[in-house]
Formats: sequence, structure tokens, C-alpha cells
Amino acid sequence: MQYSGRKYKFHKNTRRVDVRGVAIGGGSQVTLQSMLSVSTTDVEAALRQIRELSVTGCDIVRIALPDKAAVEAFSEIRAQTSMPLVADIHFDHRLAILAAEADADKLRINPGNIGSEAKVREVATAAKERKIPIRIGVNAGSLPKDLADGPLSAKKMLDAASREIEILLNAKFEDIVVSLKAHSPALTVEANRLFAERFDFPLHLGVTEAGLPREGSIRSAIGIGTLLLEGIGDTIRVSLTGNPVEEVIVGKQILMACGLRKSGIELVSCPTCGRCRVDVATITEAISNRLPEIDKHIVVAVMGCEVNGPGEAKAADVGIAGGDGFFLLFKEGKPLGKIREDEAVERLLGEVNRVLVRSN
Amino acid sequence: MQYSGRKYKFHKNTRRVDVRGVAIGGGSQVTLQSMLSVSTTDVEAALRQIRELSVTGCDIVRIALPDKAAVEAFSEIRAQTSMPLVADIHFDHRLAILAAEADADKLRINPGNIGSEAKVREVATAAKERKIPIRIGVNAGSLPKDLADGPLSAKKMLDAASREIEILLNAKFEDIVVSLKAHSPALTVEANRLFAERFDFPLHLGVTEAGLPREGSIRSAIGIGTLLLEGIGDTIRVSLTGNPVEEVIVGKQILMACGLRKSGIELVSCPTCGRCRVDVATITEAISNRLPEIDKHIVVAVMGCEVNGPGEAKAADVGIAGGDGFFLLFKEGKPLGKIREDEAVERLLGEVNRVLVRSN
Repeated sequence: MQYSGRKYKFHKNTRRVDVRGVAIGGGSQVTLQSMLSVSTTDVEAALRQIRELSVTGCDIVRIALPDKAAVEAFSEIRAQTSMPLVADIHFDHRLAILAAEADADKLRINPGNIGSEAKVREVATAAKERKIPIRIGVNAGSLPKDLADGPLSAKKMLDAASREIEILLNAKFEDIVVSLKAHSPALTVEANRLFAERFDFPLHLGVTEAGLPREGSIRSAIGIGTLLLEGIGDTIRVSLTGNPVEEVIVGKQILMACGLRKSGIELVSCPTCGRCRVDVATITEAISNRLPEIDKHIVVAVMGCEVNGPGEAKAADVGIAGGDGFFLLFKEGKPLGKIREDEAVERLLGEVNRVLVRSN
Repeated sequence: MQYSGRKYKFHKNTRRVDVRGVAIGGGSQVTLQSMLSVSTTDVEAALRQIRELSVTGCDIVRIALPDKAAVEAFSEIRAQTSMPLVADIHFDHRLAILAAEADADKLRINPGNIGSEAKVREVATAAKERKIPIRIGVNAGSLPKDLADGPLSAKKMLDAASREIEILLNAKFEDIVVSLKAHSPALTVEANRLFAERFDFPLHLGVTEAGLPREGSIRSAIGIGTLLLEGIGDTIRVSLTGNPVEEVIVGKQILMACGLRKSGIELVSCPTCGRCRVDVATITEAISNRLPEIDKHIVVAVMGCEVNGPGEAKAADVGIAGGDGFFLLFKEGKPLGKIREDEAVERLLGEVNRVLVRSN
């Protein structure tokens, strides 16, 4: 059943930064990021992957700039896409400055390896001139040397972020986004909670080195989802080993499950059990494969029996609740009568289309 | 990197119930449940599915008993398996009594449809005689009539559970487990938090009608994971439309991601990016497919570059961190030298096996 009761304190009152017209923080919609997996110097492949990510629903794309050749390729990519692009820099602060000059929309630096305070100040100056935000990307796997010794902790991750924030603020740079990522969802959650208690800079959420899509989605959903339900987090990135398009799909599902992205069709379907006298799994799969891509948010329920079936089917925009070889069809809370199992897919899709046409 | 810092308040001090020797609550390991999707009266199919669930890692299996024929089939199933079995009853309290007589290890009743106080007392008496726990399974889609009107809320779900608890306690029945499930992870989390503040009965967690495996896993991971990280939850069930074996696989991943099931190999692998000069995705897939099933918990890292690679590879039991066409191999924090990309899978698996053999 749809839940529209007490709202969580979504969208904490963070500051807002602008990434090529896409807002992060300050109560704006939680955005979805991903990162190119192809080599940055392969401009064609990079542009192709940016397009794939874009059509899948990605708002902001990050690109690794490991060397000068990558910065040059980045300039070419930049010239050919309007997608907001984040330049990801490690070790060499001069590459960050070059990226700012090459019209990056945001810089990501890592406090564990970007070097001295003076170097960070230089980056801040270059970014400030061009009004480019900087993300301080703290990663449990690459903390600054003095913090990397001994056991990991949320406090150490917070300290790594705090130091860098102080340097940027001293340089009068305030367009800061911060991330605190770990492989452990628990540690990720704890570090971000500590941060949100102390700072009002927007947070980029992610569980890092989460693994292959299967287990990585679960780890990401727990870490990111727990924080989003508390109102912590302004932009997210799911890190999965493989094609980044998968990251965007999982990210959209996390946002939808948290009630933060209300577009598309939300499918409510039961796990079925020995009580079920209709083939819910096959019908749900068939419906899922044929549901249109839409901007509006509507709920479609496919339920197997009389226990939760009528409740969920009534609460949905369109729903069916199974009996013995038949379904009851509901539209907007009203029963439309019995339908046969073999016509369930067509009848349900027909009603979905009627709801969509009427709402246009 | 592995996180062994401050522990969350896992295993809240709930009461403990016993389900055929499997403990739920009171600080015992969080157990994993699933439910048969085959017809209960197909005894062969039921036993086959129980075996599949068992080898996948399921601790407790639930079976729907919609009528007397199902109860009879349940008796046959019961006689042929040692798996703890939960009888799931709706509408007809007499079936619950018959199930108790047929040696069910636990009963699940739904306060929305089990009927009058007198009926619930009869069930309690039958369960008490046989020392069988009862789960009060509150479901947002099937609340008692007076609570089902108007908007859904966590408070209404809590009220539905409270009423039934009071009836059972009045009948001097205390072996109670409670679940409060909704399709919305936010509502599920809120209802369970309210419950845990007020009661110390063990909680069975789940997000219901979560949908097909893809989106259902994400919804379940957020709802269940958020609560587990707070120390709320004593047993879990992931509800997915499809084969229940999938529910157990996802459930295990949720428990592992929350640090609650430490067996098997935990794979840490990076999402790769334009910085990467080795084929992390292919190597990780190959390793994942060939890792042995083990009881011990060990961590294996496959990392693409020098940013987080050495940190994660060192922190793992066995790890590799990519360079330009090669990897650095680490075992238990120590570098073992450079290895070629084309030998990475074999070398890493070799070291994993050495770690496992030595630890036996």
C-alpha cells in the first residue's frame, strides 16, 4: 500500500552548489551520478558511454583524469556534450587546475593523496575563478598517511574531510561537496551521520568497492538507503564493478524505493506462496517487460491471493488480486470485476494506458 | 577496507523463542527465513523446494496452510524434513490449531484477518501446550478493518500488533515474534522502530510485496538493512516475486553487508574508471565464479589502480591492486610482488586456497 504519512526529514538544510545548472543540496532533488569506465583518452567511447548514462537517467558524469593526455581528451569530450562533467583527480594537483581550465563543471580531489595545503589552495583558486565546486572525496581505502595507521573509524574519515574543508575555507572557497565512502555500509553510514551533525555542506553518498552488481547493489542500497531515509544525502553514486549503466539503474531504484524519485511505474507484486492459484511470477514479468517508460509516477499491483491482494490492488492506480484461476481488477480503488488469468496482462496494461492517456 | 571499529548496538536485548532448536532473539544470530512458492498439497515439490532453500542457507521455512488439505499435506512434509517449519494461517483460526497439532514449529497469524479475541485465545492455548511460538504478522496491505480506513501509518501498524500481543499475554502466552511489513521501506523502518522502542519481543523483518528480484532486492536491502544496522531485527525474510531461493541469496547478502553473517568470501572490487589499465570486471567475474563455498569469512580484493588499490588489497586476506597491465599481489597485508594480468586469476585463487588450507 502506498505510504504518504509522516515524512522523514528529507533534504536536510544543506548549502547548494551548481554543477552546470544541476543543483546539489539546499533541498533540490537528490541527483544521480556515475563514472565512465572506458579510457578517458578514447573520446569516442567516452561520448558513447556518456550518452548511454544520460538516457538511463544519470544527472552528472565523473571522468578520471590521470594524466595530461586525459585532460586533453577531456577538453574534446567537454566540447561535444552538455552533460555536467566532474573531473576526478588524484596525486597531481596541477591536473585539477588544468581540468578547471578545460571547463570541468566540478572537481573531485582526494584528501589522502592531493598533497600539501599550498597545492589544495592553488586548486581552490582555479576553481573559484570559474565558479566550479570541489568535492572532497574521502575514501576509507586511501586516507591520509597519519590517519591510515591503525583501525579504521568514522572519526578518522571525518577528520580527513575536516582538514580539507578548513584549507578550502581558509582560501575563501565555499562551494564544497563532501563524500565519505567505505566498503562497509555501517562505516559509511556512521561517517556520514557524524559529518551531517557537524557540517552543512552537501553530501555525495556512496558505498565504495561494493563489488559485482549482485552483492554491490545490496551493499549500496543499505548504505545509501539508510542515510537517504534519514534525510542525509544530496547526490548519490552506486559503485559497481562492470558497466556503469547498471550503477544508474540501481541508483534510480534506490531513489525510488526511498520515495525520492517519483517517476516511472512502481510495481507492487507479492512473493506468492502455497495459497496462490494464479501464476503471479510469469504475469508480473510479462507486465514488467511491457510497461512503458513514463515521467509520471503510477503504482501497479500484481497480487496472488485474498490476504493482501485486495488491499494492495485497491491502493494502487491499477491492480489485480488473484483468486482461483482468475483475478479481480481494480482501478483507482474501484473494483472493475473479474478477469480471466489468460487476459490479465492485456487487461491490466490496457487500464494502465487509459490512466496514462487521461493524465496527459 | 575492513571495518572493525565501534560496533552498532546489534542484537538488541529481545526475548528469545525457540523454533525447533533454532533460536530467534535474545542475542542469537539473526536467522534467515523464506516461504515455499509451490502448492502446499504438492508434497514432493514442497520437499524439493525445502531442500533447495536449505542448501542455499535458509534457516526456517514458512508454508501457507489455506485449507484442511494443506494441513494434511503439511503433516506429510513435516514427517520428512527436519527443517524448522512455520505454518502460515489466515482467516480460519481452526487451521492454526490443526497446524499446531500437526507439529508445526511456529505459527504465523495475521491480526487483520484471524478473527475475534476468543479465536486468538484458542490458538494461543493450542500453541502453548506444544511450546510453539506465534508470530503476529502485521501487513500494511491487510490491517484490521477499523485501522485500514484512511491513510496508512506506522502507528496503525503498531496498534494492530499491540492488540494481538495483549490478547496473547492475557492468555499467558509469551513466545511471541512480531513482524510489521509494508511495501514502503520508510514505513517499514518507522513501524519497526516504534515497536522496538515499546516492546522487547523479537522482530521478524521484511519489506512486503517488494516486487521482482531486481527492484525487490533494493527495497528489501534498504528496509531490512537500515533496521539491522540499528540493532533492530532478530530474523529476516526477503519477499521477492519468483523463486524463493533468490530470497535466501539476497537475504544472505544483506546479513553479510551488515556484518551479521561472517561466512563465505567477501569480494571487494572497484567500479573501475578511466584510470584503470587492467580488466578488473572480467577478472573479478572469473574469480567470483571460481571462489569456493566456505564457512570461514575471508576478504578478497580486486582493485584497478593505485588510488584505493593498495589500501584495500593490503586490508584484505588476499588482494590484487592493478598497475599498467600488471597487478601487485598482497596476502594478509604483505606484498608478494608483481604478477601478470593473465595470471592474476590463478595466482589470486592459489593464495586464497593457501589461506583456507592453513586455517583448517
